[in-house]
Amino acid sequence: MPHIALPAPIPGIRGLLGVKPASGRLLSELAEQLLRGESPLSVGERELIASYVSVRNETRFCTGAHGAAAAHALGGDFALVEAVHRDVASAPVDERLRALLMLAGQVQIGGLAVTAADVERARAAGADDESIHDTVLIAAAFAMYNRFVDGLGAITPEDPALYDEIGGALVAKGYL
Amino acid sequence: MPHIALPAPIPGIRGLLGVKPASGRLLSELAEQLLRGESPLSVGERELIASYVSVRNETRFCTGAHGAAAAHALGGDFALVEAVHRDVASAPVDERLRALLMLAGQVQIGGLAVTAADVERARAAGADDESIHDTVLIAAAFAMYNRFVDGLGAITPEDPALYDEIGGALVAKGYL
Repeated sequence: MPHIALPAPIPGIRGLLGVKPASGRLLSELAEQLLRGESPLSVGERELIASYVSVRNETRFCTGAHGAAAAHALGGDFALVEAVHRDVASAPVDERLRALLMLAGQVQIGGLAVTAADVERARAAGADDESIHDTVLIAAAFAMYNRFVDGLGAITPEDPALYDEIGGALVAKGYL
Repeated sequence: MPHIALPAPIPGIRGLLGVKPASGRLLSELAEQLLRGESPLSVGERELIASYVSVRNETRFCTGAHGAAAAHALGGDFALVEAVHRDVASAPVDERLRALLMLAGQVQIGGLAVTAADVERARAAGADDESIHDTVLIAAAFAMYNRFVDGLGAITPEDPALYDEIGGALVAKGYL
């Protein structure tokens, strides 16, 4: 149950964004830039980083929505998304993406948990500075979005079909 | 030392914002909205929430900059800011602000660490829904800013006089 009154009983972060539109609009614009703006990382890779951080923060709404968005952006590969959520070390992804997901996992713990060796592993696997920047910033942003969603008690549906639908819409239409 | 190349050797988050201006501009606009936009919380109260979260995340640059901004906005009361950083429970603040700072501390741990009782304590001390919303979102946003700064290894000066200067400029001019 939400900790504050919502203008409409809309599930997830969208219900919260309507509480204060001046802030909500900027949160949406930031998501659009980070997950859909220009980047060396594909939409599927960025949604996977977002959902992986959300798993680690145990934020069910964001895990469901961004996990489904990642699967849709990766050609419907829900099994790959589940493998990443379960264990990045053994998931069937290339070494560059694996190193970036592990970097995102360190950011989820805290900024000071990121070491030069974490960054060097990503670089050795082919990640450039912009990929490293974008990975750290997406992971940091989901430290925010996850805390906003759970900290205000967003409405969190249970039905997996609803998340599938939200994920499809996020890939088709974005965040604005 | 920064983990990626910066366009200029500018300390703190400003050096990182220049790496990718399309993202950097939105991060600045969000800070301006959250810390200077309309809110039932004063500028000093909001800067204090930002610096308290930064202390807990051990992000020295943000602690220095926002701690100094809070002190300047609160009439130069550096002793009050230090007392809050040291121990919210005993700091000389009113009960509404104390409850909001404690709420922010729960958000720093994680969104799921926030309980209905934490929110109820703030409400009983006089906080309305918008104050609760703004506190949770500022604390969540500093989970992001702190991770961005430390996760990319922002340049972090030692000189307290520099933070005093930055804090003064943040109060006089804002984030844009």
